[in-house]
Amino acid sequence: MEADYQVYEQWISIVINGAPMSRLMVTAGRHWICLLRGLNRDMVKNVRVVKDVQPMNSDSRCLLQIHALKIDGELLPVTDKPHKVEFIGDSITSGEGGIGAKEEADWIPMLFTALHNYTAITAEALNADYRVLSQSGWGVLTGWDNNPHTNIPAYYEQVCGVLTGERNEALGAFSDHDFTSWQPDIVVVNLGSNDGGAFYSPAWTDPASGKVYKQRLNEDGTFNEEDLQAFENATINFLIKLRACNPAAHIVWVYGMLGTPMMPAIYRAVDAYKKKTRDRNVSVFQLPNTTEETIGSRSHPGLLAHTKAANELTGYLREILKN
Amino acid sequence: MEADYQVYEQWISIVINGAPMSRLMVTAGRHWICLLRGLNRDMVKNVRVVKDVQPMNSDSRCLLQIHALKIDGELLPVTDKPHKVEFIGDSITSGEGGIGAKEEADWIPMLFTALHNYTAITAEALNADYRVLSQSGWGVLTGWDNNPHTNIPAYYEQVCGVLTGERNEALGAFSDHDFTSWQPDIVVVNLGSNDGGAFYSPAWTDPASGKVYKQRLNEDGTFNEEDLQAFENATINFLIKLRACNPAAHIVWVYGMLGTPMMPAIYRAVDAYKKKTRDRNVSVFQLPNTTEETIGSRSHPGLLAHTKAANELTGYLREILKN
Amino acid sequence: MEADYQVYEQWISIVINGAPMSRLMVTAGRHWICLLRGLNRDMVKNVRVVKDVQPMNSDSRCLLQIHALKIDGELLPVTDKPHKVEFIGDSITSGEGGIGAKEEADWIPMLFTALHNYTAITAEALNADYRVLSQSGWGVLTGWDNNPHTNIPAYYEQVCGVLTGERNEALGAFSDHDFTSWQPDIVVVNLGSNDGGAFYSPAWTDPASGKVYKQRLNEDGTFNEEDLQAFENATINFLIKLRACNPAAHIVWVYGMLGTPMMPAIYRAVDAYKKKTRDRNVSVFQLPNTTEETIGSRSHPGLLAHTKAANELTGYLREILKN
Amino acid sequence: MEADYQVYEQWISIVINGAPMSRLMVTAGRHWICLLRGLNRDMVKNVRVVKDVQPMNSDSRCLLQIHALKIDGELLPVTDKPHKVEFIGDSITSGEGGIGAKEEADWIPMLFTALHNYTAITAEALNADYRVLSQSGWGVLTGWDNNPHTNIPAYYEQVCGVLTGERNEALGAFSDHDFTSWQPDIVVVNLGSNDGGAFYSPAWTDPASGKVYKQRLNEDGTFNEEDLQAFENATINFLIKLRACNPAAHIVWVYGMLGTPMMPAIYRAVDAYKKKTRDRNVSVFQLPNTTEETIGSRSHPGLLAHTKAANELTGYLREILKN
Repeated sequence: MEADYQVYEQWISIVINGAPMSRLMVTAGRHWICLLRGLNRDMVKNVRVVKDVQPMNSDSRCLLQIHALKIDGELLPVTDKPHKVEFIGDSITSGEGGIGAKEEADWIPMLFTALHNYTAITAEALNADYRVLSQSGWGVLTGWDNNPHTNIPAYYEQVCGVLTGERNEALGAFSDHDFTSWQPDIVVVNLGSNDGGAFYSPAWTDPASGKVYKQRLNEDGTFNEEDLQAFENATINFLIKLRACNPAAHIVWVYGMLGTPMMPAIYRAVDAYKKKTRDRNVSVFQLPNTTEETIGSRSHPGLLAHTKAANELTGYLREILKN
Repeated sequence: MEADYQVYEQWISIVINGAPMSRLMVTAGRHWICLLRGLNRDMVKNVRVVKDVQPMNSDSRCLLQIHALKIDGELLPVTDKPHKVEFIGDSITSGEGGIGAKEEADWIPMLFTALHNYTAITAEALNADYRVLSQSGWGVLTGWDNNPHTNIPAYYEQVCGVLTGERNEALGAFSDHDFTSWQPDIVVVNLGSNDGGAFYSPAWTDPASGKVYKQRLNEDGTFNEEDLQAFENATINFLIKLRACNPAAHIVWVYGMLGTPMMPAIYRAVDAYKKKTRDRNVSVFQLPNTTEETIGSRSHPGLLAHTKAANELTGYLREILKN
Repeated sequence: MEADYQVYEQWISIVINGAPMSRLMVTAGRHWICLLRGLNRDMVKNVRVVKDVQPMNSDSRCLLQIHALKIDGELLPVTDKPHKVEFIGDSITSGEGGIGAKEEADWIPMLFTALHNYTAITAEALNADYRVLSQSGWGVLTGWDNNPHTNIPAYYEQVCGVLTGERNEALGAFSDHDFTSWQPDIVVVNLGSNDGGAFYSPAWTDPASGKVYKQRLNEDGTFNEEDLQAFENATINFLIKLRACNPAAHIVWVYGMLGTPMMPAIYRAVDAYKKKTRDRNVSVFQLPNTTEETIGSRSHPGLLAHTKAANELTGYLREILKN
Repeated sequence: MEADYQVYEQWISIVINGAPMSRLMVTAGRHWICLLRGLNRDMVKNVRVVKDVQPMNSDSRCLLQIHALKIDGELLPVTDKPHKVEFIGDSITSGEGGIGAKEEADWIPMLFTALHNYTAITAEALNADYRVLSQSGWGVLTGWDNNPHTNIPAYYEQVCGVLTGERNEALGAFSDHDFTSWQPDIVVVNLGSNDGGAFYSPAWTDPASGKVYKQRLNEDGTFNEEDLQAFENATINFLIKLRACNPAAHIVWVYGMLGTPMMPAIYRAVDAYKKKTRDRNVSVFQLPNTTEETIGSRSHPGLLAHTKAANELTGYLREILKN
C-alpha cells in the first residue's frame, strides 16, 4: 500500500467476516500491510479493507494506492449483494466525529470513520453494496463558510472530482465517471447542513475574482428569501443531474442529524423538481437529530446518533426496496 | 517497537483521551509506529498503548518490546487513579472471543482483546488503575485438557512467569516479582472454568514423566469427590499465596460467565480458607452467564457479555471500595 | 363518579406521586371509587385521575362526571408546571393501541390509554401541564372513511365539541371554549394520517344530503391534485384558526408515526400559511415511524413507538421552549 | 367478588390475552367486577385475574373470594403450559416495591404487584404455569425483626397457612395441602434476605413466652457462628421438607436481589443437605443485585430489577428444564 500527503494521512479499517478487526493510520511511503494470518486454510473468509477517511480536497498530495495483494490461499469471487445504494453528503456522511473522545476538537483524519457511520450501518442492515461521495463542510449551493466552490454537484460526475493535484489527475482523477458501470437502486443525498450553516458564517471572498459570497439573514433572524431560493434552485438542479446519471434510482433527500432549519426549503425544492419533471421517484426523509447523549467528537453525530439514524433510514428504504 | 514470534503475532490498541482510535497487528521486526499526529499542540492528550494479546506460552519466540518514544511535544506525568485492581484469570480475562465474527473458530491472536473485556470496562467504571494476569485454557489446579502444569498459581510470583524461551529469560522474565512495587486494593480472581472443563476432557499424559492426569466424572455424571477436593485444595493454597503477596487487598473470587458448575466447590474452598486463616477480606461473586445474545467469537463471551459482567462486578466492587 | 354510555364505557387511571397505580373500567351508574387509602398522613401526596379514553362521538349517552371528593386529609393547591402544551390529533394522540395484546383488533375503549402515549410522556419529560383534543379516525379535512364531518377543526372552538347528545349539551358541551382561560406555550397538531387514509378508502355518502365524498387517487397511484389541494387548504385554515385561538403559542405540526405520505402536502400547506400570514411561529416536525418491534394493538403505535416519538418530540420542543 | 379486611385491602389485575389491562383496589363488600366487555364474540380470549397482594398475615379479617362468574359467551378449557414452577419467598417474591413512586415508604397493599415481579416475568418467559408462596419480612429461620414465628417452612404444608383468623379457618385455611394435586418441575426458593437482616435488627421478645430472640453479630461485625449455624440448619430442614413434598422437582435456592451477605451460609447449607441426602437435584443461583437505577418503591427491587433477575433466572432454569 502506498500513501502520501502533505498534512492529512489516511486511515484504513480491516473487516474480517463482517467484524472490524483492525483500524490503522497509513503513514507515508510504500509498505506491506498484513491483513490477516494464522486462520484455518479450509474456511473461506470475507476480507474487506475500508478507507476510513474521505478524500482530502485541501491536501493536493493526498494519495492512497493498493499496488499488490500477496496471499498464500486462493482468491474467490465476491458475490454481489441484492441491492445497491449510493450515499452523497458532507461531514456527517464522511463519519467525522463518529469516533474519538467527545472532547476532541481538531479537524484531523483520525476522527473520521467509514464504519461507525450511518452509511455502513444502513448498507449492512439492508444487505446492500454501497458507495459514498462526501466532503466535510461542503453543500449543494455553498460550503459552510460561504465558499461557492465547495459544492458537491459540480464534481459529482467526475472520478474523485473533489481531489486536487497533478499527480491525482495523472492517476485518473477528474475524468468522467462511467455511471453505467454501477447503477444504484437508491441514491441517498444528505446535504443541506452546510448550506444552512453558511447563513450564520462570515462572507467569503474569492481570492481569484475578489467576489464576495454570503448567504444572508434577515434582521429578524430568518433566512433571506433570495438566498434561500438560490439554495432551492441548486437543489433542483442537482436532482436533475442525479436523475440524468441514475435513471432508475429512487432518490431520497435525507436531512436532520444536526437540526432541521433547511427542511422547508428542501421540501419546496423537491416539490418544485417533481412538479417540473413529473418524476415521482424522489422523496424527502427526516433523520433523527443528534442529542447530548448521542453526540460524538467535534460536536458531530457520534456512533449512537449514526446508529439511530441508520435504523430509521433502514426502515424507510426497506419499504422503497419492496416496491 | 520490536516484535517477534514463531506463530502468534502481537496486537496493540491505541487509546487517545480514553477513546480507542486504532488497533493493529504488530508484525515481526523493529518499526516505528505512529501513535498520533496533527493534534493541537496546546492541548494535553492522554495516550495509552494497550497490549491486546496475552503472553503466548506456547510460542517461546513471543516478544513485544518498546525501545523508544519519539515526540515533538512534551511528556507530562500521568496521575495515579484513586484505586488499584488486579485481575487474574483465563481466556475470559484475556478477552478471547470479545472481538471478531461469531463464526470465528481459530485460536489466533486477532481474536483477543484487552479493551472489549470486563477487566478494562470495570477498571474504567471504577476509575481504577489495573493489571491483568491471564492465560487462555489455564486453571487453578489444571488446564482445560488435564495438563497440571498450566495452572496460574505456579507462576503468579514471577515476572511474566507464563512465558517461555531463553530470550525472554535474558530479558528478565521468570525473576521474582516485587509485589511491594504495586499493591492492589482489590484482587479479582476469575478462575475455575478450565478446572471444570477438565472433568469433561480426555486424560493428559505428561511427555516428560509419562504420568497420566485426569479429573474424573462419577458414573452418574457428577464430579469425582477426590478430584474436586484437589481443586479445592489448590484454591485454598492459591488464596494463601495471594494473601501473602497482597496483604491488604480484598480478594474476590468471581465465576460464572461460562456457567456455574464449580461454584459449590469454590464456595467450599473459600469457606475452608477463611475458617483456617480467620481472613475476613475474601469473598465470592457470581458473574452473569453468557447467552446466545451476548456470545462473541470462539464460543466465548462477547462484548455484550463482558459489558454485563463488568456492570455487575463494578456494583459489587464499589461497595467494597467504600469500606 | 357517574358514568353512562350506550356502548363505549369509560376507563380511568389513578396516578399517585407520578406513578400509575390503578387503571379501571368505570361502569355505568354512580359509585364511590377509592383513590387511595392507608398512606402516611404526614406526607403530601400528588393524586391524579386520568381519563384514559377519548370522548366517544358515536355514543351520545357517553358521560363521565365527578360529583364529589371525600377525603380524611386536607386538599392542597397543585402548583402550575413551568410550561403548557396542547396536543391535537387522531387515534395516535388518543393512545389507541398503546395498550393491549398485539393481536387485539376490536375498536373498544379498553385499548385506549392516555398514559402509554406520546402526549403524557412528552409532557412529563418537559415538566409541562398539557391538554389533549383528539378523535380516532378524524382528520383535518376528512375522516379516514371520507366522511367530511369528522374533521377536528370544525369542533376545535367548542367545549367538548366532538361529543353528541342532548344531555351532554345540557351539561355544557358545544358552548364556546374560553381560550383565555388556558393559553399554551406550544400547540402540537398530529393530524393528516386519516386524511391520507381517505385516498385509499371507499367513497362516503352523506345520509342527510346524499352527497358523495371521496379523496381520489390518480391512475398511477398518486394523490389527485385537486383533492390534495383541498387538504392543504383545510390545513391552512386550521392554522389560521389555531393562531386566532392561541395568539402566542408556537404551533408544531407533527406527523409520521404511521408513515409519511402526506408530508409534502403538510410542508406545502405550512409554507403557504407562513407566506400568507408572515407568521414565523409555526413549524413541521417528523415523528419516527412505527415498526414491527414498536407496534401495539390494533395495528397502531404501541408503548415503544409512543416512547420513541416522545423522546424525539421532547428534544425538538425543548429547543423551542428555550427561545 | 367479596373482600374484607381490617386494614389491608386487596388489589387485583386483569390480564387479557397476556396483556395487563386493568389493576384495581378491591374494596370491602360484595360486588360484581366487569372483567371485559365489547370484544368480538367470535374470537377466543384468554382472561386472567391475578391477585396482586400477598395474604396479609397481620390482618385476620383479610379475605378475597370469587363467588360467581357471569358471562354471555362460553367458557373454554385452559390448556396446561408445558412446565410448572413454584416460587417461595419474602417481600421480593411478593413484588413489594415493584410498583409505585421511588419515594413511597408506606407498607401498604397498593405497593405490591404480582405482575411487575420476577415470578410472573420468569414464568411467562419459560411458558410455565406457576404458583407463589411468599410473605414480606419472613425468613427460613426467622423474620427480619428476629421473630422466629415468621418463618415460611412452618406453614409450607398448609393451605394458606400464613393467614390468620377463624373465618379463614372455616373457609379451609390451615388444612393440609394436597401436594399430589400440582407437582412442580422446579421449586425456586428466594429466602435468606430477612434472616440476614435479623442480625442487624433489635431483639424480639415473644409476648406469649417472654422469651427473647436475636441473631447476633460478633464484635468485628461478622455473623455469630452459632446463630448462622441455626440458619443453616433451618435451611437444611426446609430442603428436606421441600423434597418430601415435591419428590421430582429440581430445587433452586436463589438469592442476591438485595445483596449477598448470606450466600456462603446458603451454599454451606445446600452442600450439607446434599452430602447428607445424596440428593443431586438441588442447586444455588445468585440473582443480580438491585442498583440505584433499578430500585423501586420502599427501597425494594423495582420493575427493572425484577426484569433483570427474571432474565438471568430464565436462562438458568431453561438449562435445567432441558435435562
